[in-house]
Amino acid sequence: MVEIINIGDELLIGQVVNTNASWMAEQLNLSGFRVNQVTVISDSRDHILNALAEAGSRSSIVLISGGIGPTKDDITKHTLCDFFNCSLVFNQEAFDDVKDMFARRGYPVTELNRQQAELPENCTGIPNKLGTARGMWFEKGSPGGGKTIFVSMPGVPFEMKAMMTGYVIPWLKQRFITPFIFHRTILTQGVGESFLAAEIAGWENALPGHIRLAYLPQPGIVRLRLTGTGEDEDILHRQVEREVEKLEQLIPQYIFGYDGETLEEIVGRILAGTGTTLATAESCTGGYVAHLVTSIAGSSAYFKGSVVAYSNSIKEQVLGVDPDTIRQYGAVSREVVTAMALAVQRKFEADYVIATSGIAGPGGGTPEKPMGTTWIAIASPDGVVASHYLFGDSRDRNIRRTALQALNLLRKKINAGNADNAGN
Amino acid sequence: MVEIINIGDELLIGQVVNTNASWMAEQLNLSGFRVNQVTVISDSRDHILNALAEAGSRSSIVLISGGIGPTKDDITKHTLCDFFNCSLVFNQEAFDDVKDMFARRGYPVTELNRQQAELPENCTGIPNKLGTARGMWFEKGSPGGGKTIFVSMPGVPFEMKAMMTGYVIPWLKQRFITPFIFHRTILTQGVGESFLAAEIAGWENALPGHIRLAYLPQPGIVRLRLTGTGEDEDILHRQVEREVEKLEQLIPQYIFGYDGETLEEIVGRILAGTGTTLATAESCTGGYVAHLVTSIAGSSAYFKGSVVAYSNSIKEQVLGVDPDTIRQYGAVSREVVTAMALAVQRKFEADYVIATSGIAGPGGGTPEKPMGTTWIAIASPDGVVASHYLFGDSRDRNIRRTALQALNLLRKKINAGNADNAGN
Repeated sequence: MVEIINIGDELLIGQVVNTNASWMAEQLNLSGFRVNQVTVISDSRDHILNALAEAGSRSSIVLISGGIGPTKDDITKHTLCDFFNCSLVFNQEAFDDVKDMFARRGYPVTELNRQQAELPENCTGIPNKLGTARGMWFEKGSPGGGKTIFVSMPGVPFEMKAMMTGYVIPWLKQRFITPFIFHRTILTQGVGESFLAAEIAGWENALPGHIRLAYLPQPGIVRLRLTGTGEDEDILHRQVEREVEKLEQLIPQYIFGYDGETLEEIVGRILAGTGTTLATAESCTGGYVAHLVTSIAGSSAYFKGSVVAYSNSIKEQVLGVDPDTIRQYGAVSREVVTAMALAVQRKFEADYVIATSGIAGPGGGTPEKPMGTTWIAIASPDGVVASHYLFGDSRDRNIRRTALQALNLLRKKINAGNADNAGN
Repeated sequence: MVEIINIGDELLIGQVVNTNASWMAEQLNLSGFRVNQVTVISDSRDHILNALAEAGSRSSIVLISGGIGPTKDDITKHTLCDFFNCSLVFNQEAFDDVKDMFARRGYPVTELNRQQAELPENCTGIPNKLGTARGMWFEKGSPGGGKTIFVSMPGVPFEMKAMMTGYVIPWLKQRFITPFIFHRTILTQGVGESFLAAEIAGWENALPGHIRLAYLPQPGIVRLRLTGTGEDEDILHRQVEREVEKLEQLIPQYIFGYDGETLEEIVGRILAGTGTTLATAESCTGGYVAHLVTSIAGSSAYFKGSVVAYSNSIKEQVLGVDPDTIRQYGAVSREVVTAMALAVQRKFEADYVIATSGIAGPGGGTPEKPMGTTWIAIASPDGVVASHYLFGDSRDRNIRRTALQALNLLRKKINAGNADNAGN
């Protein structure tokens, strides 16, 4: 039984949403640890002491995030000393880590950093590869005779995540016997949650009792997570995979990947594997497709670049789209998005091009072309195909949905081409 | 002192992020109620009873969300009866509300809805205009002689929000005299948390006791939040603003904005206000600067577009950068980023251009130009200025920090130009 304590005034005035708790809970569940309670408290000594005592009395594992940064509102470390009845001692290894990190970046080490290398004497330090504050692992005997593990981590999400994944969860798994839990996530694009639920209702209702389904919708994507729990790892894997195969036969048109993959990773892998190149010609997505593609390490092997033609003058002068075409059909049209794709394909000498033009909103809609109207073109060595979509009434989500739809169209196009070639 | 209890298994497996808590905390703070703790628990009777008892022993107001829907896992209402030692009684008014709502939507009333109209006998019902479950307001004497107010609300966010805004907060304000609370957040860029803390330590230590400071770091940005508490609204505002002014004199070079603003919003407002235009020439940021700029509604008024020149061939063929310059200085150099900026300024006829070239990583670093090495150029009507940075060892954060640094350089450049013009 795990309890999570998140320390931070910013969480109690609503300035920051507590995404740390949900991420920690999800990762713990994936590893077979059940979270019993999440408690959010202020950066106050008495409050921290009280929460530690309450959590320790109920749970065998208490994970704490927040309050160990270098600034003076961070009192967690001193309070932990009080709770565990010990003193801070200077830790040379922790200080060397910080010095190395700062030396690599060319920063000077400050007195604050030296103070951060002081750790409670009866804790085991947990390395922090991404920040200056070490994590702290304590064990405390409980009145019943067992031990409770307390782990203190930074509140900065990427530091906490690296520490959880790299150390805390592996160390906990060495100490506790957990049931086998096997997760498989099927990634779908191009269908909303309620339509998807209706299409797979029969399959969902027939799932065995020890395999549960969760819908995890995000803008433009619905993830379907199957969670199986059992005693025998091999049997469990086979049972879950059998359900995945049934789903693949039921909705092949929506599935683009599995588990933690992203569309931009999958597309990148296919491009790298086939030795082909990509460029983008973006209007409504404003560079977001290029950003997704280049967020993947190694993308310079297959991504040539992009023209973001946000204004019509750029479509005309930089991409050479005929002003008459824009005047006749409008910038959001099959004709313009096709011309944009072909122009970038020629200029950038790219095998594939994604082009987008749409009305992301909130302004710009008309009765004929309301907000959310979007054209996407995919140029390939075979030619160019444009498709039309009507997305929603949120600018952010329209940009995101357009980009994901475009990447999935590209994925299908390349895969279809490969299948053709394999058949020849 | 308020405590929030959120009930729901979905919050403890990480499937749902607890946005209810942050919204409730923000609204309460804006009304002068301080939230002391947020507790997330499962849909389990013992756990709910325990959390209610603990919260009631500490706080005068306990707000509960979740667990009062129509499905069988929703046991909150029965547990509340146990806690307050009373029975459920049928409430005709509550049932009429549900019947009216369903009649308007053309739905039949079910036996489940009839059960939902049963309320604990010693509570005051709170109308729910958007759903079938009423809220419940209880008052319970505490051992010290005072009273604790417990309010149970739905977990569905829009139902809870309407109930909080329409009833719960107004009723609480009638019952409690609340201090004024005033928040001001100062946004900084270009400095890490520990360096910033060292620079403002004197100011921070001299803050009056009723004004507190919190550091809220994000990749590339550190937000400084001042929270003042006092009896007189006007005096409190002036006191907090005086501290903000002192800070503005101390670190003007880092401050780019206030409260909930983003750099892309601020830059957009300045461009729109001065009637000038922007384009970008991006290598290492891969379209991310363009994406940030175009994430703002109305950006088509000032953003012309971008060339993402990810490969050297695009820098040469599309932007016309001299291949000899790239060969001599490398793509990540003052010379190349300057040439990129000028080429796009000319091609796009833009007043301002942001150009980026860097080694985002993880590959591509050398001893002379390690990962994180970045050049940013800002072209303006006055010419072009390039600056050099050494960011860190995370690809995502290098992209983000480069983009934020570039937007802030642009903001300073435009503002400096305006100041010059005003002086002429």
